[in-house]
Amino acid sequence: MIKLFYVPNACSLASHIVLEEIGAPYELAQVDFKTGAQLKPAYLAINPKAKVPALATDRGVLTETPAILAYLAQTHPDAKLAPLDDPFAFAKLQGFNDYISATVHVAYAHIFRGARWADSDAAIAEMAAKGPGVVAKHLELIEAEMFAAPWAMGDDYTVADAYLYVMTRWTARADIDLAALPKLADHKRRMEQRPAVQRALSQEGLA
Amino acid sequence: MIKLFYVPNACSLASHIVLEEIGAPYELAQVDFKTGAQLKPAYLAINPKAKVPALATDRGVLTETPAILAYLAQTHPDAKLAPLDDPFAFAKLQGFNDYISATVHVAYAHIFRGARWADSDAAIAEMAAKGPGVVAKHLELIEAEMFAAPWAMGDDYTVADAYLYVMTRWTARADIDLAALPKLADHKRRMEQRPAVQRALSQEGLA
Repeated sequence: MIKLFYVPNACSLASHIVLEEIGAPYELAQVDFKTGAQLKPAYLAINPKAKVPALATDRGVLTETPAILAYLAQTHPDAKLAPLDDPFAFAKLQGFNDYISATVHVAYAHIFRGARWADSDAAIAEMAAKGPGVVAKHLELIEAEMFAAPWAMGDDYTVADAYLYVMTRWTARADIDLAALPKLADHKRRMEQRPAVQRALSQEGLA
Repeated sequence: MIKLFYVPNACSLASHIVLEEIGAPYELAQVDFKTGAQLKPAYLAINPKAKVPALATDRGVLTETPAILAYLAQTHPDAKLAPLDDPFAFAKLQGFNDYISATVHVAYAHIFRGARWADSDAAIAEMAAKGPGVVAKHLELIEAEMFAAPWAMGDDYTVADAYLYVMTRWTARADIDLAALPKLADHKRRMEQRPAVQRALSQEGLA
């Protein structure tokens, strides 16, 4: 059975929501970042990057949210969570997820994990202070240019919606005014009405 | 005909190499970052993120290197540049590319483009100084844990090799000692023996 290694409210929530949308059996394994479990040999043997998500399958471990989301969509075609037979539409979806991964999530990381890229308290504080504005600009670009409505990619709900939801959910942690982004705020509300999202939040102790 | 918008020696080089490996007709369009062309309306209409690569197709524009690489592999199956019929192997490949995009490339950006995440000269200089060590750590993880040999994903040359090559190529710009990473140094040498790579470098004025 596949097993998702996660941290509550981390970007692993996107994979968790998609697993709930699919409805196939899976296991959850929480990685306790507070005790540094991600840096211990047991977890490094699963994911040497010391991060979540990691998805253990009978073939081996997958990492990186865009790759896991595409894998879950491809291996559960009946769930119709990605345009699997249209390489252009699939690439648009992947480009959406890649922008979240390499740009939006990275901007958030400067608020919470600046020590990855600088050492002095002053530089880390400066990144944390600038971060919310940087994230907001990226979310504005999604709102204005990328969000197709009613779902991220248009008429069809896809794995991108779960990933986008994590990014809009995090605005509360970073004091970003989501009300200034009405399409994304409405998307977040509609996501929270989905039973699969409610189940994932509840299982992570977030609802 | 598809058209690749690129900057010489930018991450768009990965898509350029893959287009040369495929051998199908395409056009190149250089975006002149030195004159700020990426910020002008003509280019923002193509890619509102003001970045390269962008791949214009008859269906619209694709962005983000991992998405473009997967698209090129899927639409040219005869080139055998990705394991298209094996979702697990495809996800491993995508996870490799996503790690480059969201972690390795991001670490390089702190050397060259720190103003994205901080404003003071001191903080930007601190990120630039720490950056090469951060990149080197990520490349060490690829060398030790992810690189399957002889190619990035194992026996088969894939789109991941082109992307990895851009990252090892950039070590020269960042004063990172590639000789300390023998598998990646050997991979770079073998990449530079491929006619497709030599053509792409020549077309970008790099050889």
